[in-house]
This record gives sequence, C-alpha cells and structure tokens, in this order.
Amino acid sequence: MTHLGGCRSLGRMLSDNHDRRAPAPSVAWVDGAVELIDQTRLPHEEAVVRCTTVDMVVDCIQRLAVRGAPAIGVAGAYGVALAAAAHDPAAEAGAFAADVTRLRDARPTAVNLARMVDRVAAAATSAAAALEAAHAVRAEELNASTAMGELGADLLLELCGDRPLRVMTICNTGGLAAVERGTALAVIQTLHERGRLTEAIPLETRPLLQGGRLTTWELARMGAPHRLIVDSAAASLLARGFADAVVAGADRIAANGDTANKVGTFALALAARHAGVPFVIVAPESTVDIDTGSGADIHIEDRSSDEVISVRGVSLCPPGTEAINPAFDVTPVALIDALVTDKRVVNFRAGESLQGEHLHG
Amino acid sequence: MTHLGGCRSLGRMLSDNHDRRAPAPSVAWVDGAVELIDQTRLPHEEAVVRCTTVDMVVDCIQRLAVRGAPAIGVAGAYGVALAAAAHDPAAEAGAFAADVTRLRDARPTAVNLARMVDRVAAAATSAAAALEAAHAVRAEELNASTAMGELGADLLLELCGDRPLRVMTICNTGGLAAVERGTALAVIQTLHERGRLTEAIPLETRPLLQGGRLTTWELARMGAPHRLIVDSAAASLLARGFADAVVAGADRIAANGDTANKVGTFALALAARHAGVPFVIVAPESTVDIDTGSGADIHIEDRSSDEVISVRGVSLCPPGTEAINPAFDVTPVALIDALVTDKRVVNFRAGESLQGEHLHG
Repeated sequence: MTHLGGCRSLGRMLSDNHDRRAPAPSVAWVDGAVELIDQTRLPHEEAVVRCTTVDMVVDCIQRLAVRGAPAIGVAGAYGVALAAAAHDPAAEAGAFAADVTRLRDARPTAVNLARMVDRVAAAATSAAAALEAAHAVRAEELNASTAMGELGADLLLELCGDRPLRVMTICNTGGLAAVERGTALAVIQTLHERGRLTEAIPLETRPLLQGGRLTTWELARMGAPHRLIVDSAAASLLARGFADAVVAGADRIAANGDTANKVGTFALALAARHAGVPFVIVAPESTVDIDTGSGADIHIEDRSSDEVISVRGVSLCPPGTEAINPAFDVTPVALIDALVTDKRVVNFRAGESLQGEHLHG
Repeated sequence: MTHLGGCRSLGRMLSDNHDRRAPAPSVAWVDGAVELIDQTRLPHEEAVVRCTTVDMVVDCIQRLAVRGAPAIGVAGAYGVALAAAAHDPAAEAGAFAADVTRLRDARPTAVNLARMVDRVAAAATSAAAALEAAHAVRAEELNASTAMGELGADLLLELCGDRPLRVMTICNTGGLAAVERGTALAVIQTLHERGRLTEAIPLETRPLLQGGRLTTWELARMGAPHRLIVDSAAASLLARGFADAVVAGADRIAANGDTANKVGTFALALAARHAGVPFVIVAPESTVDIDTGSGADIHIEDRSSDEVISVRGVSLCPPGTEAINPAFDVTPVALIDALVTDKRVVNFRAGESLQGEHLHG
C-alpha cells in the first residue's frame, strides 16, 4: 500500500474488498475526480492515483498507469468531464476544446480513446451533461463485461458439460483492462460465481507478464483458485489434460474471424486444437473490424528488445542481446472454436461466420 | 567474476578464451575435485564451484548449477570418482553404494545421470579405476558433440538446401550442457563454422531462462549472429517464415522415439509442424532409453513455484502465487522429423525407427 504524491490511497477499500470478491475498479469517478489503480505498480503496490485535472489523466494514460482499450476509453471520457468542470463548454469553448484534443491524442493509436472522448465532448453542453455522458460510457463497458461473462460461461458449460471447469487463459483481460470484470477473465469470474470453476490457469504472458502480475492479482481478489504457468508449459499441460477450455481476449478481429491478440495466443490455440480442448475468443463487438479482410491485413507491432532482455529493471541476458519482439500474433479462424461478444456467440467450428444478421447488434 | 565460498574462480581462463571462440568447459576434473561453471550465475557472473565431496556434486545437480543431460552425466561420473576416493569401493562397499545411489537419484528425468553413475560405479574397483572410467565418460561426450554437430549440419543442409540457414532452438544445449560444443547448439556452431548460419533464434526458455542467459552467452562467444525471442513468440514467427529449421536437445528418448526435453519443446515441435519447418532432435545415443516404451512411460519432474514467480530474486507475482511447473515435456515422435545422435541419423518422417541395426553403435 502506497500513498502517492497528489493522490489518496484506496488501500483500505481494496483490502476490505478482498473478502467479498469485488471486481477491480480500475477507473472510477469519486467525489469529483477520476481515480485509477496504477497498474504499473501492481501487484507489489496497490496504489490509486486521484486525477483532479486533465493533465493528470493524460499523464496516467501516457505512462500506462491505466491500460486496456476499454479502461483507457473510460478514463478519457471522465477526463472530458473534468475538462467541462474546469472550462464551461459554452462560455470557454476554446479552452474546453484544447483539453479534449489533448485527451484524444494521449495515445494516438488507441481508437477507443478517441471514440469515447469525442462522444462525451459532443454531449458536453454543460459540466453535468459531460459527466452524465461519461457515466454512460462506463456503464456500457460494465454491461458489456457482464454480458460477455454470461454468454461465455453459458457456452463453456454447453461445450464441456455443466460441471466445474479448469480454464486456461493468457494475458490480462479482467477488470483492470476494462473497468470491471473484463472479457475472457469475465467468463472465468462468472463461472466462479456460479460455482463452476475448479481452477483458472493463467499463462504468465512474457515479455510484460500481464498474466503473472495482473491476472493472478485479479483472480486472488475474486477468491478464484488458480495456478500460474510459464507460457511454454501450456501446450504440454493441455495435452496432459490439465484444462477443459481455453479463453482469450482480442485486440482486433478481422472480417473472416482471424484474431490478433497478445503474442502467444496463436501458440495457445494451436495447442488447444491439438489437445481437443475448446478455444474461445471473448471480446466486445467493437473489436470486430469488418474493414480488415483477414489476419494477413493486420499489422503486427514490433516492440523494443528491452522488454525481453530485462524484467523490472533486472537484466536477464548478456548486455546488448538483441531480440525479435512482436507484441501480437494472429490466430487463424480455423483454430478458433467460437467468438463470444457482448452481443452474440459465433460458433466458427460449426461453420458460423461473423457476417451474421446480428453484427454490431 | 565472483569467488564463491569453498570455490575457486576460473574467471581469468574464461575471459582469456573470449577471443578464440573457446567452448565452455562446463565440467572438469581439476586437482582431485570436480569443477563446474555455476550456470545459475551466468551470464552476469562467471563463477566456478569446486566440489570436493559427493554432497557438493549432488547439491550442484539439484540446484541446476550444472545442467544439461550430458553435463549432468559427466558430473555424476566424477561424483562416483569422489565417492571412490572417500570410501574404498571394496573395503567400504556400503558407504560407497550409498553415495552412488544419492548421485543416481539427484534428478529423475535425465537418463544419462543414472547410466553414467552406474557405469563408473561398475568399473570402480579402486579410486583410480573410478577416475579413469569418469575421464572416459567425459572424453566420449566430447567426441559425441563433434559427431552430432557434423551429422546435424549435414542433415539440415540436405533438408533445407546448401545455403545459409536461420535456425531456431530452445533451452541451452551447448558446451555448458555437454562439457563442450553440446548437442543441438553444436549443430548451430558447426553451421556457423561452415559459413552456413544466417542467424540463430534462441527461445529464452522460461522459467529458468537457459536460452536467454546461457545460449545467448555461448552464441556471443562463438561469434554467431543471433536474436532472442520469448517462448510464446516462436509459433507465430515460424508461421511467418522467420526460421528454416528448428533443433532441440533431449533428456530422454523412448524406444518409439517420443522425446522428453525442456518444457516448451513440445509446443515448438507443434508450431514447426504447423509451419512446415523441419524439427530435429539432437542428442547423444546414450539418451536413447530402449527400456522406456513411449513418452507415456516417462516421469515428468515437477519443480517449485518459486522458479516461476520470481527471477534473480525479483518477485514477479503477488506473494504466495502458486504455479504448475513441469520441468520437461514429451514431444511425440509423430512431430519429430529426425533424430541426430553421435552415431546416426534416424529419419522418423521417412518411416525410420530407432530399432535399426546401428542402435548404440
């Protein structure tokens, strides 16, 4: 528990929540300010940053204190509410618009951020109207998480039989990434709440260890049994029958169903198929990008060698070692059994496609 | 460079060797004791442990100061020589046998350890005879490495065409693992010496990072171009055409060709097959265990959660996180294109089996 300069601590609240399986409130509006769990400090410190200005929100987005496209979008939405409180959108339109621009550009590649910032700004006829619109953005994310959790849990129990399940997952797809509950981890949480989770098996998810650092922390908070594995153990453990199903999130889903997600997802899908274990993608409908034909059209971001050759500032390799560090990979739809969104289930294995009548609800 | 308690340093020797691409002398008999490079401290410290007792050898094997099936076998062989020096095998048969048993059981999965320990023990009519037998074990490993490198390089150039190759590999299978040169890494070294290596792509090999710590160190020492990857990136990089061949070592090879090796090998074989890239096991003939029918009969060592949840003393996870940590996995022979030993090439893909006339030379 750490008290940050200019911030107040939510440590007591977090501790109190431990026993009642509270989801992680990654972004919340509390007493006129945006409060964010500082994800760069997890799991070793549970520090909350209280942002009272647009500058503070921009800073948190840029230094990844808040991460995950939905969570960033909600933070940006509340940032607009702060801007509207500081500068009346009607009387000080120029100052308000400048704040909105800074929020929108805090991470130019995150399309969700721009979309939510613009939406709240358009509704901001007053400070109260801006806050109402931001609350609506947050509520929609929560509802989407709840829907994905329910639909996904239903699907897994249908695929595997109505019994307690052992579920493997990769990266962090819980409340930290998506305000509360999340995507793939929301499915695990829902199973747990229904008494249908024997064990979650998170992959640590090198290089940035989102599974080891964040997913374990969220699973512990919800009181869900779990055991961590290194990424490369997933394939043989699946072959040895350690898991009944695999769930993963998505960063982008092409029109044919090919899915870009955290590097390692493709390897996990390949292993699940080899073992005959269902592999299910869980992501909001907004992740589906019908303008991208297939995985071949998805650009894979290459990141720095530094992420591979050191961890938490500790060198793991000979100095100067170079790495190939793709941040994502693309899982071909042929290896994906089903997609669960907040609106529907698409059973690829049964021949269904994304181009159904329910697309975008 | 570090001086360990009860140890002496080989730092000067190692430094002197840097410029002449010397193989790493991982296990040596020096002035009446077994000297081992402490591989847990590489690449940041080049420290040598001098073992003067069986207890010290057992400890080094168990805490992975010495690792790699051939190197463990040689360490065990010299351990028997230490036992014979401490307890005359004829006059103190009980005490000698107890030492032999402790050495044989220091680690369960590698067949070489038990085999080499038993071989030296059987020859140990005296301390001098035991030492002579242990020296013979070490000399054979050296010759075997050279042979594997040549046979493996020939095979890859035959499979891929006589051109510079990009070769992916897992764990550490070089001189550190096998006295000198090694197994799979000996093939890469031989390709490099022949001007037929474009790039080596080592997997970091979580949890203990033998690829990131040791293979990169050996590749740098031999002047071979290389780029490191996280384990979970291997599958998608293979699918994207980043490597021409994959080589891996083995801890134990069953009679049907199923192969136990470092956890992650099975995932890598699965990915190579999916990508249509040759996957070749390189291991000494002594790794073949005809008494083990198939991979189903191989015991997989489970190791501590601590290896997963921290690195170099730095915590990566919430305190108390439990892990499933299998040290090895079993790759079914159906995913292995060929086995290269010091005596022969067995082309599984072409229907050849281990039960050929050349078994055990």
